[in-house]
Amino acid sequence: MKRVRFKDESGAVNIGSFKNGKVSFEDRMYEMDDVDILPPVKPTKLVCIGLNYEDHAEETGREVPERPKLFLKTPNTVAGHEDTITLLKNKKRIDHEAELGVVIKERCKEVDKNEAMDHVMGFTCVNDLSNRDDQRIEQNWVRGKAFDKAAPIGPVVAEPKNVPKDAEIKALVNGEVKQKSTIDQLAFSVSELIEEITTYMTLERGDIISTGTPAGVGPIKDGDEVEIEIEGVGCLRNYFAKP
Amino acid sequence: MKRVRFKDESGAVNIGSFKNGKVSFEDRMYEMDDVDILPPVKPTKLVCIGLNYEDHAEETGREVPERPKLFLKTPNTVAGHEDTITLLKNKKRIDHEAELGVVIKERCKEVDKNEAMDHVMGFTCVNDLSNRDDQRIEQNWVRGKAFDKAAPIGPVVAEPKNVPKDAEIKALVNGEVKQKSTIDQLAFSVSELIEEITTYMTLERGDIISTGTPAGVGPIKDGDEVEIEIEGVGCLRNYFAKP
Repeated sequence: MKRVRFKDESGAVNIGSFKNGKVSFEDRMYEMDDVDILPPVKPTKLVCIGLNYEDHAEETGREVPERPKLFLKTPNTVAGHEDTITLLKNKKRIDHEAELGVVIKERCKEVDKNEAMDHVMGFTCVNDLSNRDDQRIEQNWVRGKAFDKAAPIGPVVAEPKNVPKDAEIKALVNGEVKQKSTIDQLAFSVSELIEEITTYMTLERGDIISTGTPAGVGPIKDGDEVEIEIEGVGCLRNYFAKP
Repeated sequence: MKRVRFKDESGAVNIGSFKNGKVSFEDRMYEMDDVDILPPVKPTKLVCIGLNYEDHAEETGREVPERPKLFLKTPNTVAGHEDTITLLKNKKRIDHEAELGVVIKERCKEVDKNEAMDHVMGFTCVNDLSNRDDQRIEQNWVRGKAFDKAAPIGPVVAEPKNVPKDAEIKALVNGEVKQKSTIDQLAFSVSELIEEITTYMTLERGDIISTGTPAGVGPIKDGDEVEIEIEGVGCLRNYFAKP
């Protein structure tokens, strides 16, 4: 099952299922283009991982760390499929980062990695937008990573059984592939990340762990269309405009 | 007016007013000890400031930075007045940090500092609990600052007119004063912080800016009672226990 949250023509917000380009809810079926696809969940936080693919660590001149490098995105960062995102004023470089998002099923704490997948609702696409101008010069990446709409998510949450272990993950800018890897390249696995994070923090239903990005990150410009595609999940598309 | 959120004897959660040690709600009045005082608001995020008092910057061997040093606490960090907080397993040092919390009145973005106070509901006490073992060794202070219950807040939100410009702020451990300053010693003012943060992030009603701590931070041990007192606001008290 693929979960989709959407607004119908009357303005009602519903959670339906997504199949073959169509949204089903109760006894109705809609074309995807006839509804407003919303972020599939409303996270209280996104816990994000830096340097979790070896090839991306290399392109930044660093190494995969000994334990997961964590940072946070707050609810103001959430954006949805097809949203237009305004670039930040007076910043030279906002980058795309294609990431596998892990959506938490229910409140959990101190989860053992061997049971971690029991707490997963499914996977979604995340574009971990990064304002490099500020990220480079601040200790905690707040201006760099937690600005409004810095976390487009969606379009759906796919159950883990629908997503191959080696699913392909890609970022495309204006149709051109910029990032391409497979999710089995994660240095710290989804289960290991859940165990580590819940040692410190309670995760809530709908919270997201964004598991890091592969090589190929790059700048987004006014007018760009950026797509994050994960095999078995779908394609998250956003448009970018100057401020 | 001082806003207080509380649970009454029937289990109902209400928002009342606090005066002379008593909680008023509709036509009823309660002794403070007869109700369960809850965190006064439910923030979607706390945006916290590091090194915002010169004497604290000095005690850490650093300087007040050129622009506010930001970091984040997520909703899992919120704790209330009189809550008992479990110290973290296998960590040597969890510190108290007395801070003035600024509670946001309504959703706002790109606020000019000259109008910033229009967006403030009031002030509360924050204990910015800090796990130094991890804070010292991670880039983003997630394990260090965003563990569960790392942000006791309360007991009330006091309107700005009730709080002197040079209100005293203190931390007491088992009744002994450990931190003592006045809120006019803030390097970046409340208005400047609101302008800077809302350049990047939308703030929501109930969100909190925790404005930094003065000198005197120190470790908390099993069995300690820690109080954060701000003149015109009140006294936030918490108990600490080993895991």
